[in-house]
Amino acid sequence: MFKRVGIFGKYNGIESWEHIDKLVRHLVARNKYVLLDSASCRDFPCDRYGIETMDRGQLAEHIDVAIVVGGDGTFLDVARSIVDEEIPILGINLGRLGFLTDISPSEMLTTIDEVMNGIYESEHRNLIHVTIEKNGQIEFDQLAFNDVVIHKTESPRMIEFETMVDGRLLNSQRSDGMIIATPTGSTAYALSAGGPILDPRLDVLSLVSINPHTMSTRPYVIPGSSTVEIRPHKNCNGSAHIICDGQLTHHIDTEHHTTVTRHTKFIKMIHPKGHDHFELLRAKLRWGDKF
Amino acid sequence: MFKRVGIFGKYNGIESWEHIDKLVRHLVARNKYVLLDSASCRDFPCDRYGIETMDRGQLAEHIDVAIVVGGDGTFLDVARSIVDEEIPILGINLGRLGFLTDISPSEMLTTIDEVMNGIYESEHRNLIHVTIEKNGQIEFDQLAFNDVVIHKTESPRMIEFETMVDGRLLNSQRSDGMIIATPTGSTAYALSAGGPILDPRLDVLSLVSINPHTMSTRPYVIPGSSTVEIRPHKNCNGSAHIICDGQLTHHIDTEHHTTVTRHTKFIKMIHPKGHDHFELLRAKLRWGDKF
Amino acid sequence: MFKRVGIFGKYNGIESWEHIDKLVRHLVARNKYVLLDSASCRDFPCDRYGIETMDRGQLAEHIDVAIVVGGDGTFLDVARSIVDEEIPILGINLGRLGFLTDISPSEMLTTIDEVMNGIYESEHRNLIHVTIEKNGQIEFDQLAFNDVVIHKTESPRMIEFETMVDGRLLNSQRSDGMIIATPTGSTAYALSAGGPILDPRLDVLSLVSINPHTMSTRPYVIPGSSTVEIRPHKNCNGSAHIICDGQLTHHIDTEHHTTVTRHTKFIKMIHPKGHDHFELLRAKLRWGDKF
Amino acid sequence: MFKRVGIFGKYNGIESWEHIDKLVRHLVARNKYVLLDSASCRDFPCDRYGIETMDRGQLAEHIDVAIVVGGDGTFLDVARSIVDEEIPILGINLGRLGFLTDISPSEMLTTIDEVMNGIYESEHRNLIHVTIEKNGQIEFDQLAFNDVVIHKTESPRMIEFETMVDGRLLNSQRSDGMIIATPTGSTAYALSAGGPILDPRLDVLSLVSINPHTMSTRPYVIPGSSTVEIRPHKNCNGSAHIICDGQLTHHIDTEHHTTVTRHTKFIKMIHPKGHDHFELLRAKLRWGDKF
Repeated sequence: MFKRVGIFGKYNGIESWEHIDKLVRHLVARNKYVLLDSASCRDFPCDRYGIETMDRGQLAEHIDVAIVVGGDGTFLDVARSIVDEEIPILGINLGRLGFLTDISPSEMLTTIDEVMNGIYESEHRNLIHVTIEKNGQIEFDQLAFNDVVIHKTESPRMIEFETMVDGRLLNSQRSDGMIIATPTGSTAYALSAGGPILDPRLDVLSLVSINPHTMSTRPYVIPGSSTVEIRPHKNCNGSAHIICDGQLTHHIDTEHHTTVTRHTKFIKMIHPKGHDHFELLRAKLRWGDKF
Repeated sequence: MFKRVGIFGKYNGIESWEHIDKLVRHLVARNKYVLLDSASCRDFPCDRYGIETMDRGQLAEHIDVAIVVGGDGTFLDVARSIVDEEIPILGINLGRLGFLTDISPSEMLTTIDEVMNGIYESEHRNLIHVTIEKNGQIEFDQLAFNDVVIHKTESPRMIEFETMVDGRLLNSQRSDGMIIATPTGSTAYALSAGGPILDPRLDVLSLVSINPHTMSTRPYVIPGSSTVEIRPHKNCNGSAHIICDGQLTHHIDTEHHTTVTRHTKFIKMIHPKGHDHFELLRAKLRWGDKF
Repeated sequence: MFKRVGIFGKYNGIESWEHIDKLVRHLVARNKYVLLDSASCRDFPCDRYGIETMDRGQLAEHIDVAIVVGGDGTFLDVARSIVDEEIPILGINLGRLGFLTDISPSEMLTTIDEVMNGIYESEHRNLIHVTIEKNGQIEFDQLAFNDVVIHKTESPRMIEFETMVDGRLLNSQRSDGMIIATPTGSTAYALSAGGPILDPRLDVLSLVSINPHTMSTRPYVIPGSSTVEIRPHKNCNGSAHIICDGQLTHHIDTEHHTTVTRHTKFIKMIHPKGHDHFELLRAKLRWGDKF
Repeated sequence: MFKRVGIFGKYNGIESWEHIDKLVRHLVARNKYVLLDSASCRDFPCDRYGIETMDRGQLAEHIDVAIVVGGDGTFLDVARSIVDEEIPILGINLGRLGFLTDISPSEMLTTIDEVMNGIYESEHRNLIHVTIEKNGQIEFDQLAFNDVVIHKTESPRMIEFETMVDGRLLNSQRSDGMIIATPTGSTAYALSAGGPILDPRLDVLSLVSINPHTMSTRPYVIPGSSTVEIRPHKNCNGSAHIICDGQLTHHIDTEHHTTVTRHTKFIKMIHPKGHDHFELLRAKLRWGDKF
């Protein structure tokens, strides 16, 4: 049974306050201890409800479960910040159905009651850990729940880089970049770039090149336990960006070593009882239904 | 140390006899016990060498290691027939480099000596088990090392079928068919149909639709432990073929249930010391090399 | 102004009679001369309306305009049979919106009145002419409005064939087959196989390989004035099918020469005033609309 | 018969001087009037040969034929600058075979002699004309021989923009951008992004989206006579770049109107007698050859 609930909204997202209001009143009425994320709910009138906000950095230590009210982008951001404390997380979608925020506002309160009483389904999803190092110095150390992307900078020219997997050369390529996606990210940017959909139960990563010059370049799926290293070549524009979840960016050049591994902790996602991932895929991708 | 060696050639493949001759003399000179597969080496002049042929069905029980002299097609065929006795297998390629037969004739004898002395690398690869049942009767029960394909018959019209994964509907589709590929098969037909390349260390399967009518249909990668069921719908040409490794075919209609699981045993493939799968991919797919 | 109207239904399509009934009564009331296609409307009770059926072979000579009540499949079939008499054609869609039958039953009578009075838009679309010859003998001589396909037969093995364009080798390929599509057919089977969409104003053809073995094989767009020749090679299953519009099939082997040219006559398609092909594409392919 | 020859080298391309030297001596010995492009051959020791350099802007008015010694990039650049004077152009490739520079150095002198004597093949290829306007002011007015690309800027987020063709909305899309390619450019960046290959005889353009969010977005081929307009939406990062031939860049936002038409003049490309474009495609794309 969950007792302490952390609520995260959409940045500048006054459109989420109507739902946060309902949620907070519902939880307070059930004697839950409720905390709001100060970063995303800065101006929410907490004193009306007798609750508090707290810094995101500390929040994970004071809650048993995280509720995200927003879109998939908000969910990604929160997931990265609570994974190390192994707090379970669930998402209420505002607007259209999300791949991550899969509880609709209309069934929100019923689902929350069930979840609070231990009636739910859960699954573990892997994350990516990225470090960028130059001259023995670590310049960037971040997580990604969807994907980490190497992409050419503003220049119109392709980049050229080598990809090593577990210490051995996979290939060198000339392209606009490459996406390393988790199963969670396999339905996001990697899908636009032609990558396969990976079942969320899998602990694997896919490497999906973006507009590769060589036409035989194809998505490659590796074990989650692999170590991937990337290094841009000085030919063809030896500078690039590394981007985590489309949210965190770092500029690299040929002297930077970028290393990607699966993070040691997994995200524990909570779904309503009876959740069916295939149903979500069929709804979002307009796949065919039962005859 | 391997003592008893089974040799398999290419069907009607008199072009493989030159290499089998060298191999047999070499092994006999080293006091190995050598048996030839009677199916593929029927007319090979065994008595010249003081060796015997044996039925493929029995052969696996009398050997410690299987050597395939031929192409990838021969390898697939032999692999399916020895997997249950867990005999390690290696392949000498005639003609161009194969994905499976990765030892060239020129280095054959040196490699064989090393292998016989325990100097080699090995890996386990999964296989597919297919059963087709109608009215409670099993009509087809086979293995596939590369892939099992459901494909429309001669009719120009697409087929329509449902795919279930672990008892739940993944989707229904109208297409020319679908490939279920192992990592081994991911570089074969599935690659032509747009599927991802799966690292051979993975115990996963990919589902790759062939010319699907719905453009959002994409390759889907599932755990090796999954059970896949396929059933053609009576709409749109309710009959199809099931094809294992492009070699074994069975006609099905809407009353047949086709069930695909990963086979309980794995193939133990032997490679020369220092084998590098990525190097093979780069050579076969003309990917970029080290700068 | 059109005076003589030919009406074509869906084969065995009693579901189209309700609409044919409305259409016939409407046209007769306006003193149009109405003829029904005997092939597709065999059992329609013509005497109730004082109209006649006629053999499709002769029909085109007695009408000024053709109305197809059915789906895109019916439209293809009728279009091929009336193109040489240059009869304009329009389509009423039963069921969901078609690429060809773009008039909905609900607006049918209004549109027909406008068309009869010369208020409409029209466009010319190219067709394909296919001949198959063996030992100097022509065995097959047909038109295709969507596409002509060379496809492997029931065998699981790929076919290998050469494609000549204007007397010069374009390439040889190993694949499941190849689609030669008109702009009209570019949104049909060719789209499933990864082909581009061709603007209907263009007099071009696209060559789209089906699951080619070589990954650099890509759709190739040629002038409508080109001559394409195809010949299967005796390697790799030297037999195949030629299929026009998914409706007409002929078996070929390595001794058959298949020649494809653009037909000398074009189809004159009639659309309601204000017809917008891009709107149709956006609706059918769920592309994005105006902001 | 050509009398006045303009020679263009690779920028900073001292590696092309060996070939320019041979070429100049050969042409001077045959009494041709030779001019060098001052931009690309600034430091070439012209006085040794008794020839001159001239500004590129003026050069086209003083020559009958242009010879490019370099790669495809140099060829693109020169082609744009001479097209309006309708000077025929040919290319000597340094390094590997190019799609545009298709004469090898080893056969250079023989081919040049033939060309000078009128023995050659030629073809016309279309170009793109791009204008970018803001508040009634034209800010950018350039040609592109391969392609014009709209691409997101450094931001990791996709852009959203509308595409109009001939004054009507084709679609709105969320993507990394879109390529508008000529037949010449169809084997360049557009090919990496999944576009079709367009026969160089065609006067068409292809619109190829880059990693579109909607999976049913497909390359669309339009008549060369079309007018395309592009306008980024303020949602989703309403700023982007317009890039011509990967060489000329302009930053745009939602207030810029970008208009693309086929240029009024065509490039006249010269090839050696017996040139076969399909042979070039087979060689560059490793397509299959004659059986």
